[in-house]
Amino acid sequence: MDRADGRDLESLRPVRFITGVNRYAEGSVLVQWGQTHVLCTASVEENVPPFLAGTGKGWITAEYAMLPRSTQSRKKRDISKLKLDGRSGEIQRLIGRSLRAAVDFEKLGERQIVIDCDVLQADGGTRTASITGGYIALALAVKKLMAEGILTENPLREQIAAVSVGIVAGIPMLDLCYVEDSHADVDMNLVRTASGRFAEIQGTGEGRTFLETELAELLRLGKIGTEQLFALQKKAIEEA
Amino acid sequence: MDRADGRDLESLRPVRFITGVNRYAEGSVLVQWGQTHVLCTASVEENVPPFLAGTGKGWITAEYAMLPRSTQSRKKRDISKLKLDGRSGEIQRLIGRSLRAAVDFEKLGERQIVIDCDVLQADGGTRTASITGGYIALALAVKKLMAEGILTENPLREQIAAVSVGIVAGIPMLDLCYVEDSHADVDMNLVRTASGRFAEIQGTGEGRTFLETELAELLRLGKIGTEQLFALQKKAIEEA
Amino acid sequence: MDRADGRDLESLRPVRFITGVNRYAEGSVLVQWGQTHVLCTASVEENVPPFLAGTGKGWITAEYAMLPRSTQSRKKRDISKLKLDGRSGEIQRLIGRSLRAAVDFEKLGERQIVIDCDVLQADGGTRTASITGGYIALALAVKKLMAEGILTENPLREQIAAVSVGIVAGIPMLDLCYVEDSHADVDMNLVRTASGRFAEIQGTGEGRTFLETELAELLRLGKIGTEQLFALQKKAIEEA
Amino acid sequence: MDRADGRDLESLRPVRFITGVNRYAEGSVLVQWGQTHVLCTASVEENVPPFLAGTGKGWITAEYAMLPRSTQSRKKRDISKLKLDGRSGEIQRLIGRSLRAAVDFEKLGERQIVIDCDVLQADGGTRTASITGGYIALALAVKKLMAEGILTENPLREQIAAVSVGIVAGIPMLDLCYVEDSHADVDMNLVRTASGRFAEIQGTGEGRTFLETELAELLRLGKIGTEQLFALQKKAIEEA
Amino acid sequence: MDRADGRDLESLRPVRFITGVNRYAEGSVLVQWGQTHVLCTASVEENVPPFLAGTGKGWITAEYAMLPRSTQSRKKRDISKLKLDGRSGEIQRLIGRSLRAAVDFEKLGERQIVIDCDVLQADGGTRTASITGGYIALALAVKKLMAEGILTENPLREQIAAVSVGIVAGIPMLDLCYVEDSHADVDMNLVRTASGRFAEIQGTGEGRTFLETELAELLRLGKIGTEQLFALQKKAIEEA
Amino acid sequence: MDRADGRDLESLRPVRFITGVNRYAEGSVLVQWGQTHVLCTASVEENVPPFLAGTGKGWITAEYAMLPRSTQSRKKRDISKLKLDGRSGEIQRLIGRSLRAAVDFEKLGERQIVIDCDVLQADGGTRTASITGGYIALALAVKKLMAEGILTENPLREQIAAVSVGIVAGIPMLDLCYVEDSHADVDMNLVRTASGRFAEIQGTGEGRTFLETELAELLRLGKIGTEQLFALQKKAIEEA
Repeated sequence: MDRADGRDLESLRPVRFITGVNRYAEGSVLVQWGQTHVLCTASVEENVPPFLAGTGKGWITAEYAMLPRSTQSRKKRDISKLKLDGRSGEIQRLIGRSLRAAVDFEKLGERQIVIDCDVLQADGGTRTASITGGYIALALAVKKLMAEGILTENPLREQIAAVSVGIVAGIPMLDLCYVEDSHADVDMNLVRTASGRFAEIQGTGEGRTFLETELAELLRLGKIGTEQLFALQKKAIEEA
Repeated sequence: MDRADGRDLESLRPVRFITGVNRYAEGSVLVQWGQTHVLCTASVEENVPPFLAGTGKGWITAEYAMLPRSTQSRKKRDISKLKLDGRSGEIQRLIGRSLRAAVDFEKLGERQIVIDCDVLQADGGTRTASITGGYIALALAVKKLMAEGILTENPLREQIAAVSVGIVAGIPMLDLCYVEDSHADVDMNLVRTASGRFAEIQGTGEGRTFLETELAELLRLGKIGTEQLFALQKKAIEEA
Repeated sequence: MDRADGRDLESLRPVRFITGVNRYAEGSVLVQWGQTHVLCTASVEENVPPFLAGTGKGWITAEYAMLPRSTQSRKKRDISKLKLDGRSGEIQRLIGRSLRAAVDFEKLGERQIVIDCDVLQADGGTRTASITGGYIALALAVKKLMAEGILTENPLREQIAAVSVGIVAGIPMLDLCYVEDSHADVDMNLVRTASGRFAEIQGTGEGRTFLETELAELLRLGKIGTEQLFALQKKAIEEA
Repeated sequence: MDRADGRDLESLRPVRFITGVNRYAEGSVLVQWGQTHVLCTASVEENVPPFLAGTGKGWITAEYAMLPRSTQSRKKRDISKLKLDGRSGEIQRLIGRSLRAAVDFEKLGERQIVIDCDVLQADGGTRTASITGGYIALALAVKKLMAEGILTENPLREQIAAVSVGIVAGIPMLDLCYVEDSHADVDMNLVRTASGRFAEIQGTGEGRTFLETELAELLRLGKIGTEQLFALQKKAIEEA
Repeated sequence: MDRADGRDLESLRPVRFITGVNRYAEGSVLVQWGQTHVLCTASVEENVPPFLAGTGKGWITAEYAMLPRSTQSRKKRDISKLKLDGRSGEIQRLIGRSLRAAVDFEKLGERQIVIDCDVLQADGGTRTASITGGYIALALAVKKLMAEGILTENPLREQIAAVSVGIVAGIPMLDLCYVEDSHADVDMNLVRTASGRFAEIQGTGEGRTFLETELAELLRLGKIGTEQLFALQKKAIEEA
Repeated sequence: MDRADGRDLESLRPVRFITGVNRYAEGSVLVQWGQTHVLCTASVEENVPPFLAGTGKGWITAEYAMLPRSTQSRKKRDISKLKLDGRSGEIQRLIGRSLRAAVDFEKLGERQIVIDCDVLQADGGTRTASITGGYIALALAVKKLMAEGILTENPLREQIAAVSVGIVAGIPMLDLCYVEDSHADVDMNLVRTASGRFAEIQGTGEGRTFLETELAELLRLGKIGTEQLFALQKKAIEEA
């Protein structure tokens, strides 16, 4: 079976992390994941949500948005409809939960890191690119806080990366691009840690439902993908 | 290990489906699932979202909301903040996707069925109660449309039910109540079909991440729970 | 003249108050008034609106909403239009004013009781059912605060109940159901106290205007209705 | 008993109707009612709300708003809070209902007249000034439509005017100014027709509840006030 | 060339400032500028925007809105669309900036003066009428604060007035009315100080772009207009 | 006098136009203007605003927004406040007006080109970068429409570019960066055409007002800047 772009079933698209693209953010990276481009910034704020005030613990929040022409046909801005797009709301909650799994909030101290993921161009997998890039931005911000002596202990527990897998025309495959995603029977997003554990599994039967054996194959593919991403993330963070 | 309410690890809370509780809705059911109470109605509308106009195909939409005092401390209404609650938005998208997996839209014809899930009292598992009850309301509406000759072929492909599973204090268990859910390390919602397939898997490591072996145990528990729910649903629909 | 449901002109529909239907609320009642079903909860909050801060005086606020399928054809939720429904806003102001007439705010102390009235099913008279049921929820919350010693003096001055009256096809009658209400020439809502005084009169000539003699007959009918409601309320509160 | 401005209990404040104050509106009047100043315009639109499309019948809508500094201390604009003020919403519904009672919608034909009541300065009684002035603006617009031959039959059935009455310090009185209104025990707004019928009665016990005998006295005062207003309205419309 | 109303190219329309039209505002003026009528009020508030708290410095804010029937065809209120009109937002920012240019914020002290400009009737030039009238309202409020001893030093640095100029059918002219404005090739608003300096220049080529020589002629006309306005303002403020 | 970055008073910062950065947009350019980075896309839509429907004429609309961390400290997204930022609203109106000055709408035909200007990083001059880059995106979209034969006549009348000028510490200078802009006494944005005419002049005395001689010097500097930009734009469009 030929994939849209000639990849084999177990291959990621070319993934490139360009760090330091924003001069103000404490951490930033432009993720170029095939034709999907996401700009991730980490902003350190010396405040926390009300429920944490006075606890000495920090927090990670994420926001996700698409530029109007990141998509094939132009999409109206949320503000013109006065409503946060439902899909964006769901994705930013996922990004936040996934990245919070990587952080020891006592070590972070009573401060907040806001991860902004803005999609400049979308070709499938924007949420997994956002989580994977968001982790890099977060790690760079932490690195900066440690270099400045604001943090003395590293609050990052372990690396987090995410990838999509799916079943298209009956065939399980890794890292769906938009064309594949839009025809997928099953679509799954896996968020994993470098120690081989899951932070999040979200699988949906879009065209049809799926069997446990298919789930197992999707998890196998997801591991292959995230292992490669951990290596790329590590290199990007070290070289930044 | 003792659970909050003395159940064993593989037991559901008592689940009761009271059908026909709304005189206007084409299908309705009050779900009493332990102390979680959700009112589900199915409303048939002779229109479809714009992207389906003229295709002859129908659609299922779901909306989910909590009454202000369905929770331990009163929660403000969305309208007072002019924003749909992010969690509610995510849940109603999940309910809609799950129920759409059960429907053949060509057989439904160009009409829409809106499933409203309003939580009267919440004690954990409101989203799975909404999906499970939403399926009943949907089935009752379909039954009515067929009895009236508006539909000639049954558009329901198979039964859908959902249940939560989770790991609390290191122990996997079925159907978490609120106290358990709020202390869970891992929280997972499973949507299954009567033929034994998955429509949706959403697992989150809240306190910590999880292993593949733990995932397998959670799936096993989820099957036990949904099998019981399929039987209860069937009885409720037949006796309505 | 025959009424829609065979009642005579001076009769209420069957009214049932089921108390204690919500495990979290300090007071709660499900009002089943003919086919009109309203869930009323009273939530005690240890705060007051800004204009009362530091005065030692409390407040009663009310909110009113209809579930989407409480009506014959499904009604969109307010949040989907980003606007509180004008009719709902007017009704919740009326409920709040009416119940405030029953309360001595100095005795209540600097706390707020929020009365939520959510219409599960509507068949006319939802605002009067909300006031009448809202009083019960309020009285139960006060009873609880007194039992717990939080209040030492009863802040309730006297019972409040409300009923609708109207002129349909030229004939004055008590307690209009939806079919009658939608054909009414004159529609009036009366809020009375157990000592025989008025807290609120709202009369509207919908199809036509009305004479003072007609007003007198409507007031007479309203007294008959509220007297019965006071007895039912009293019993429900005592037996709760 | 002395009133704030020396009037006796049965007297209106000086009321002046200055017509033709807006060069674009089909009808307009500036109401100067004591220190309460309301600008009322009637705008004829060749469209109707959706529920009337194709029926050949027209409609009257009203909108009410206060300029920010119409009140003693500046009030924020609704748009800065993204919410229509609850009181304004209730008042504009009352104005609309009251004026619709005056109109034969078949004779008006399938068009809409929008009555805008903007309070330039408020000193009590703004809603009754709006109804009374709104009727004049409406009548002037109708006069114009008839002069232009757009309407051939007069759609106005009879004059409508409104006045407030209330009980202050135990004493019933006509036409409360702000100081009186803010200390009133009972506040009532009466909308009457020139033929002596009621279009609307809205009475509220603010500080305390009221007796039927008090209601009777308030209705008597309201008649005195509206009779004078009918004469002033008539003169203003004829001389315009 | 004949202008719409027979004026010559260098003439203002008749401008009248009626001060003291609002009994509550610290300063108020009704501007009647030809058929353009704007009500300006200045409200003194003993608070400042957050960024000035504790600095001892004050602030001037302006808000601008049009009544629905201030225009030829009725315009919907902002609140009905839940969005501040873009043009209004731009104009109120201009009014605020222009008036702030006149004020020494240290001398004003830590308080805010809110200038509300509400257009009762629009015939072109509403923004320049708002600035010019807003200055008068501001000056009257300052006069009151000084008379009351709340201010000891005058915080007004110098007079500010504004006028529109434009090129219509190729001909530069002063103070465009609506008909001229709607056909203008170039539209320019000039805000000047009594000492002959500019506070703001906003020139737009609507139908076509413009030359530097045309700009020079427009500036010359603007000076003629503002000089007359300074005299009228001064008289209005002194006589108030 | 030394400028923040060592430039002389008549110099632009280094300006780079990277075209074709978005694979979906009909025209796109990343503007790197010193440290100010703006992504401009042109989206062709086969529809027009209601007021142009059926006229055969087209339209240009612009939208402008800043990414949250485009600024030194993170700025909340508009959607979280449910309000379009006032400054953004004003800027997008300016961009739209400026670009419309370049287009013959009859030649464009009944279609709309939407110019989105999203600021990735802001260091002063974002509005002039948006106009200058927006023109390039527009020109590239037009080039594509002509290459595809959708347009047969070029609807672009002439090139449009914009630059900021200002007076800082009494000294007029070209192209202010953020540090200069935040201390400027006078800030002016000039939009010019390649034929040497003005499309828009917006000059504001922020700290102080300005003289006509200063205006003349600012215009001279603006011409120097825009002439260089015309050459750079032309090259970018030709080489794309």
